[in-house]
Amino acid sequence: MTGSRAISAAFGADLHLEIQGPGLRAGLMEALREAVRTGRLAPGTRLPSSRALAADLGVARNTVADAYAELVAEGWLTARQGSGTRVARRAAAPARRAQAVEPLPWQRGRPRTGGPLRTLHPGTPDLASFPRAEWLKAARRALTDAPHEAFGYTDPRGRPELRTALAEYLARSRGVRADPERIVVCSGFAQGILLLAAVLRARRVREVAVESYGLDVHWRALTAAGLRTPALPLDGLGTRTEALTGDGGLRPGAVLITPAHQFPLGGALAPDRRAALVDWARASGGLVLEDDYDGEFRYDRQPVGALQGLDPEHVVYLGTVSKSLAPGLRLGWMVPPRHLVGEVLAAKGEVEWASSALDQLTLAEFVASGAYDRHVRGMRLRYRRRRDQLVAALAERAPGVRVTGIAAGLHAVLELPPGSERAVLRAAALQGLALQGLDAFRHPDAPPGRDALVVGYATPTDSAWPGALDALCRVLP
Amino acid sequence: MTGSRAISAAFGADLHLEIQGPGLRAGLMEALREAVRTGRLAPGTRLPSSRALAADLGVARNTVADAYAELVAEGWLTARQGSGTRVARRAAAPARRAQAVEPLPWQRGRPRTGGPLRTLHPGTPDLASFPRAEWLKAARRALTDAPHEAFGYTDPRGRPELRTALAEYLARSRGVRADPERIVVCSGFAQGILLLAAVLRARRVREVAVESYGLDVHWRALTAAGLRTPALPLDGLGTRTEALTGDGGLRPGAVLITPAHQFPLGGALAPDRRAALVDWARASGGLVLEDDYDGEFRYDRQPVGALQGLDPEHVVYLGTVSKSLAPGLRLGWMVPPRHLVGEVLAAKGEVEWASSALDQLTLAEFVASGAYDRHVRGMRLRYRRRRDQLVAALAERAPGVRVTGIAAGLHAVLELPPGSERAVLRAAALQGLALQGLDAFRHPDAPPGRDALVVGYATPTDSAWPGALDALCRVLP
Repeated sequence: MTGSRAISAAFGADLHLEIQGPGLRAGLMEALREAVRTGRLAPGTRLPSSRALAADLGVARNTVADAYAELVAEGWLTARQGSGTRVARRAAAPARRAQAVEPLPWQRGRPRTGGPLRTLHPGTPDLASFPRAEWLKAARRALTDAPHEAFGYTDPRGRPELRTALAEYLARSRGVRADPERIVVCSGFAQGILLLAAVLRARRVREVAVESYGLDVHWRALTAAGLRTPALPLDGLGTRTEALTGDGGLRPGAVLITPAHQFPLGGALAPDRRAALVDWARASGGLVLEDDYDGEFRYDRQPVGALQGLDPEHVVYLGTVSKSLAPGLRLGWMVPPRHLVGEVLAAKGEVEWASSALDQLTLAEFVASGAYDRHVRGMRLRYRRRRDQLVAALAERAPGVRVTGIAAGLHAVLELPPGSERAVLRAAALQGLALQGLDAFRHPDAPPGRDALVVGYATPTDSAWPGALDALCRVLP
Repeated sequence: MTGSRAISAAFGADLHLEIQGPGLRAGLMEALREAVRTGRLAPGTRLPSSRALAADLGVARNTVADAYAELVAEGWLTARQGSGTRVARRAAAPARRAQAVEPLPWQRGRPRTGGPLRTLHPGTPDLASFPRAEWLKAARRALTDAPHEAFGYTDPRGRPELRTALAEYLARSRGVRADPERIVVCSGFAQGILLLAAVLRARRVREVAVESYGLDVHWRALTAAGLRTPALPLDGLGTRTEALTGDGGLRPGAVLITPAHQFPLGGALAPDRRAALVDWARASGGLVLEDDYDGEFRYDRQPVGALQGLDPEHVVYLGTVSKSLAPGLRLGWMVPPRHLVGEVLAAKGEVEWASSALDQLTLAEFVASGAYDRHVRGMRLRYRRRRDQLVAALAERAPGVRVTGIAAGLHAVLELPPGSERAVLRAAALQGLALQGLDAFRHPDAPPGRDALVVGYATPTDSAWPGALDALCRVLP
């Protein structure tokens, strides 16, 4: 079928698809990509059913269905129950191809929202559960009560209403020792790590130790600021914080770590290692940067309190609403040691880089009114149910796959037979299921590890979840 | 009266004020500052009336009134009609004194919101006029209509709904040649300039020419990125853009300029100079960075369209809601040349530095529904009325002061007799009126210029405006 043909019937208009190369599916995919790129298939256009297009092209229906699924996974198309397959709204227009289609560095390892419906990438909560009505209620109260000055250039620490609400919440729910005066509101965790990188550089710190597994976007934020990021070694119990005090040669000025729930492996840092970390910070004058990204979500036992509570003068606590509410709010916070507040504000203030005052006031109202607690409790139940469904489905349909890291958080690690990670990822892509392997989170310093998947079970909407779970089970060995 | 005394009656509780030094007013001010610092006067505490405290201390009432007014101007106290004088909510608590009381670099030259009520600093709109009800209405519609993916990690260009609404609005109201694909939403102008600084540095640009008068926070953002910022010379007609093409030795890779309304002098760039700027950019491959900070506000003639309309491939258009709605929203936009979009996104994307998706969707709704146009029209009338009141008051009470730069914008330049700028500023401070002289905006390269004030007539609330205007007239020669 190499060659080209106009497929007018299925599209209701002439569409010339040039299908070339050895594989039918690959050829069809490239032809559709090209039609989107050149604008011949406009964003929002509904595609013919796979049956109709297959008939029109004279190919097997599965070939078209597979091509559609993979293009959905790539973000070119979207597929929604009841509205068929359409060209994604954000698919690249011709001149912007380079920047719109290539994922930006920070998008690597993240599902493209608006792209594939069947994604089990970790890192995103169930966006369909955003509490719209409650949030609007809080926004109304916030807008009504706000003093005029709230609409002006804001305090670089963030709105006092939000800092007051957070101080109470963080003390109660995470054991953070905070007072409103030392909380700094950030535009998500990302701004926090950038500000800290600037502060550390100004203090002539050269190295920030990180974990053997994590998000490379965080490591890159540090290296972009001129900091080296050697990895702490890992053993069966998790990150070996003792390496800091031994003769291992690591002499960092700070350590970036996820003590409550290692990302992505899922364990809590053992008590003796927590102690070792704080001891190291005290003895060396170093700083612990505590990334408490999903500390609200723990299912099987008492929450692991924030490390910061052990020593607020040596630990910078970093939190965010990206997992508990929505990443789109771009709201997070930092609780630095008292002596560091001025330096953090100097780094923040010079660029006048603040978060929206209205969102800050709304979140303050949302937290202070108890709506945040209620939302987190509700989501904890939902995610726990999903986790249980994942574990049950795997036990039944993929009994050889061991699940770990499930006591907390929004993702699980699925241990695969040695050597099978890449094959499973390939099979998933063919099914239009976006999955990530553990290796995508491995630090360059760390030796290749187990074959495993990092499955974000919070990401799909409720309607997409059963299909995603089923697709997952089908590609597992 | 050097010494100390407890003034229990006036405060309704014991308050020990240690009043020392030669001047009564200065001594009282320092004693009050110290009481706030140490927490003995808590934020929100209502101070005794100046009459009562004066009686209690045995000093003239004006001494107390002057001390109060100056502390209001400094941000330690607030004074509101009907609720008396109180300790400012954000007044520094003891341990945070250093960072909370010293203005941060970007706060220099800006009134502290929440601080003095009588401020005529330029750069802030009337915050009391923020359209709360209309904004909430737009937020409700935005929250109802938002697709789930809007709550996720967003497109680094910003929400498509907002870019679509802005493209239409900017074309219509400012003559900007934009399409949604090339608009990049920014967290205010500040993020725009930082992103452009990063892009220019990556392109090995070393110099960005700026105007002889402007905001030093913008110049510092560029120099912090490693760029030199020589100033373009100035003559009676405004910024001499011809200097770029002459033998003056200026060979910048870009020019940052306010063509529609020079900040702070207030003129529009003359047509031949606009043409010269674009010619320079085309011939040299340089970039014009067009800061259109208050282009919506022009009173006496047709708006000056955006320079970007002349040559979208050599001009980066930068706009913001900071003057038209509120700085607290932290929303702005950039329309770069098509070939630059990818580089801007690379600079933006790596740090995952995005604006709140909900505010973006709300602004999109606000613009698309026509509420933004209505608000701007209403504010234009209000500000025009203020400007006319300013001009009338000066004509009557300070006829020797010439007013310039009043055809547009939210501020005016008041020309003072040579050598009098500092004395006027000192007199204003003593009256508790926050004013800024023209010299505060002068580039280090520029020779000392005229003595003048830059008066932001949009800043006071309606209730504070008559008092501010009166205080201004009283300190003018």
